Amino acid sequence: MKPSIPKGTRDFNSSELGLRNFVKEKIKINFELFGFEPIETPSFEKLEVIAGKYGNDEEQLIFKILSNGEKLSKADLDSFSKKNLSKFANSISEKALRYDLTVPFSRYVVQHQNEITFPFKRYQVQKVWRADRPQYGRFQEFLQCDADIVGSNSLWQEIELCMLYDRIIKDLGLKGVLLRINSRKVLYGFSKLLGFENRFNDFTIILDKLDKIKIEGVKKELLKQNFPRQKIQILEKFILLEGSNKFKLEKIGKTFKDSKINLEGLVEQNFIIDSIEAIGGFESIDLKFDISLARGLSYYTGTIFELVIPNFPEIGSIGGGGRYDNLTANFGKKNLSGVGISFGFERILMVLQKLKLFPKDVNSHVQVLIANFGFNTALNCNLILKKLRAKGIKSEFYPDDAKLKKQLSYANSKKIEYVVLFGDEELKKEEFVLKNMNEGTQDNFKISQLESILLSKLKK
Amino acid sequence: MKPSIPKGTRDFNSSELGLRNFVKEKIKINFELFGFEPIETPSFEKLEVIAGKYGNDEEQLIFKILSNGEKLSKADLDSFSKKNLSKFANSISEKALRYDLTVPFSRYVVQHQNEITFPFKRYQVQKVWRADRPQYGRFQEFLQCDADIVGSNSLWQEIELCMLYDRIIKDLGLKGVLLRINSRKVLYGFSKLLGFENRFNDFTIILDKLDKIKIEGVKKELLKQNFPRQKIQILEKFILLEGSNKFKLEKIGKTFKDSKINLEGLVEQNFIIDSIEAIGGFESIDLKFDISLARGLSYYTGTIFELVIPNFPEIGSIGGGGRYDNLTANFGKKNLSGVGISFGFERILMVLQKLKLFPKDVNSHVQVLIANFGFNTALNCNLILKKLRAKGIKSEFYPDDAKLKKQLSYANSKKIEYVVLFGDEELKKEEFVLKNMNEGTQDNFKISQLESILLSKLKK
Repeated sequence: MKPSIPKGTRDFNSSELGLRNFVKEKIKINFELFGFEPIETPSFEKLEVIAGKYGNDEEQLIFKILSNGEKLSKADLDSFSKKNLSKFANSISEKALRYDLTVPFSRYVVQHQNEITFPFKRYQVQKVWRADRPQYGRFQEFLQCDADIVGSNSLWQEIELCMLYDRIIKDLGLKGVLLRINSRKVLYGFSKLLGFENRFNDFTIILDKLDKIKIEGVKKELLKQNFPRQKIQILEKFILLEGSNKFKLEKIGKTFKDSKINLEGLVEQNFIIDSIEAIGGFESIDLKFDISLARGLSYYTGTIFELVIPNFPEIGSIGGGGRYDNLTANFGKKNLSGVGISFGFERILMVLQKLKLFPKDVNSHVQVLIANFGFNTALNCNLILKKLRAKGIKSEFYPDDAKLKKQLSYANSKKIEYVVLFGDEELKKEEFVLKNMNEGTQDNFKISQLESILLSKLKK
Repeated sequence: MKPSIPKGTRDFNSSELGLRNFVKEKIKINFELFGFEPIETPSFEKLEVIAGKYGNDEEQLIFKILSNGEKLSKADLDSFSKKNLSKFANSISEKALRYDLTVPFSRYVVQHQNEITFPFKRYQVQKVWRADRPQYGRFQEFLQCDADIVGSNSLWQEIELCMLYDRIIKDLGLKGVLLRINSRKVLYGFSKLLGFENRFNDFTIILDKLDKIKIEGVKKELLKQNFPRQKIQILEKFILLEGSNKFKLEKIGKTFKDSKINLEGLVEQNFIIDSIEAIGGFESIDLKFDISLARGLSYYTGTIFELVIPNFPEIGSIGGGGRYDNLTANFGKKNLSGVGISFGFERILMVLQKLKLFPKDVNSHVQVLIANFGFNTALNCNLILKKLRAKGIKSEFYPDDAKLKKQLSYANSKKIEYVVLFGDEELKKEEFVLKNMNEGTQDNFKISQLESILLSKLKK
């Protein structure tokens, strides 16, 4: 029976890694261009750090690590017999794999607060693990790419992150990407306007489903949860509001003002949208103020972002983020404001593959294979090999004295462009034959010209 | 209470990552220069893939992942009550974190054998996890760097890997590194000579401790385990044999020949050592044929390697590897010969840090900070920022209108070399002030010269 890997995980060969590294590097390079510094945290955290930080459903998706050796004898059999499997699990587990990068980052900030200079601009590109049911585009192990700034309330940070989204999407060559932006403060104003403020979280959770269940679904669900029909109609009017960002902000602003609702969120959104325009706007993406954007996570307190490709609704969002004011409070540090964004790495990869947007040379291949003609010339071939490598040319010697056909087919399958043939006859003539695998041509050269010929050919 | 991370794990800040990436890149670049292709495997494998592949002691160090949800109800309480904790653990775990890169690689080769072109030269630089007691230089999460070639018996592969060791150590700037080489075939011949062949594994396990317990310790342990005293004396003579590699090989060869012991292992070692010399030898490391090198792992069948720094005995080996003939047999593919080496990444890092061998510019810092002088000029500052970034200059705008002293101290702590000052007065004069933080100087320039001035200064 062939061995296999756990569902929802993947092996990557060198071509697949080529594509992944291309996207990863574009993201990292721009994070650094924008002044973010990398950090890395351990793959597993203490269970107490991770547990209780997400919703109940999410909590079920955390991979816990089984304690080793004698610690297992502490298993809480009482909880087991009472079918409290979660308590049973916690009695034999002290660690869990990272579920996201946000919680480890909050833990990091609090743990290292005395070494950190604030505002702290950090990025983190690491794997996370979720015991999710694997499906199209969803894996149990996947990469997250986060950039956050903590320790400043300045709205220039929100602008910075918008510009960063634009720059990375431009570098990846993706067209038709839309950055949706809203504010939890505006949403809260809205819920006040509608008299929903005591059920703000329920309201945003339903609103967050708009993309999936459409306006009719949202209305139905709100009704089902006893939100008043008349208020739902007002909401619908605003959700369906068409026009420029400025037009929508003005319209909402007027309504808020009439209802004596705090305009702070709207002022902020105006500042962000105006400033982006004033510094020249985006080069690649479009910006859309969208009152229906809610973001499910309750820790957001200000501006929220979501990056989508309207032409690929099945892909969902390819990025998201927002302003939070209390993320580190869980670990004992209150009132540290931060704002961050995340890239949906695996989804971006899927879109780029679908649209064939990867450059041709994304994989770096071995450049030269030196064929093996047996014992007599093997040593000379290895002298050649050493010279090529000293010049930085990626090269290898075919290890066995196999038929040339087999060796050339090896070169083909590894996409090696040049094969050097150096057998007994070439040794005598102090020559070598250079075979171009792409063009199917071959030429003789003096062995003394080896490095210069190959360097010039490879530079082309 | 401050949050913390599990023992034996580490957070890395950007300076630490700078050092780690420096070493990682040197290793990767040379792996690719030598024709190896990267692969990556999932962080966790099915438990059946990992279990039973290492010794009993090692098996205890595997991190198992607790099953999720209802699967926990399958807990084998019977085994628990019989204190068979290992069986109990296996009833509630189906996956385990990678313990090394070798077993996942073997699984990969068998699983993907129809897509792979052999000989398959792969490298893998990924983390592994072990529930080891943390101590000096030993962690629960650490990086492994492996290069292997499977599907060829050619001894040129052994030579290739020796050259690769030399090249990487040279690139890292490490001096005084010794590559110890031996052959399990020679060791087996030796055990035959001494009449130990039926206890070959016991013999090699004791011999493997030579570095730690010295010759006296090895002798004592062999005696204790009832190896005959007289034979131990013969062994000692050969272990203490001094002289060149060729001298030692000749001496052993003569003894083997007289005892009618198969010389294959010695012929191979001679070929490897002679060939390395013939192609010009090493540039950085020394090669020592060492009859006492055993390598604990029983899967090695031919040449074995170990990379050490004799001046740092406390560090132990910084690399190792060897030829194996049956690694994939566990997964149903027999007689696939391979040879590989591994780099002790964390230990190499420790030595480089101890010897201060890292280049000064190993960390890439933000290059320019644009100071914040408040609302009036913030927009202009962001226009400047956009221009700098468009030229690829790593730059950021200080987000808050804080005192200049605070902003400069931020630049200092992030090691940012240049600060651009652009306040009301500069705006009026169409100038900017450029502060060099290293030299403590500052100069005025026309704002139109901004990019050209900074580009030329940063190039220096």
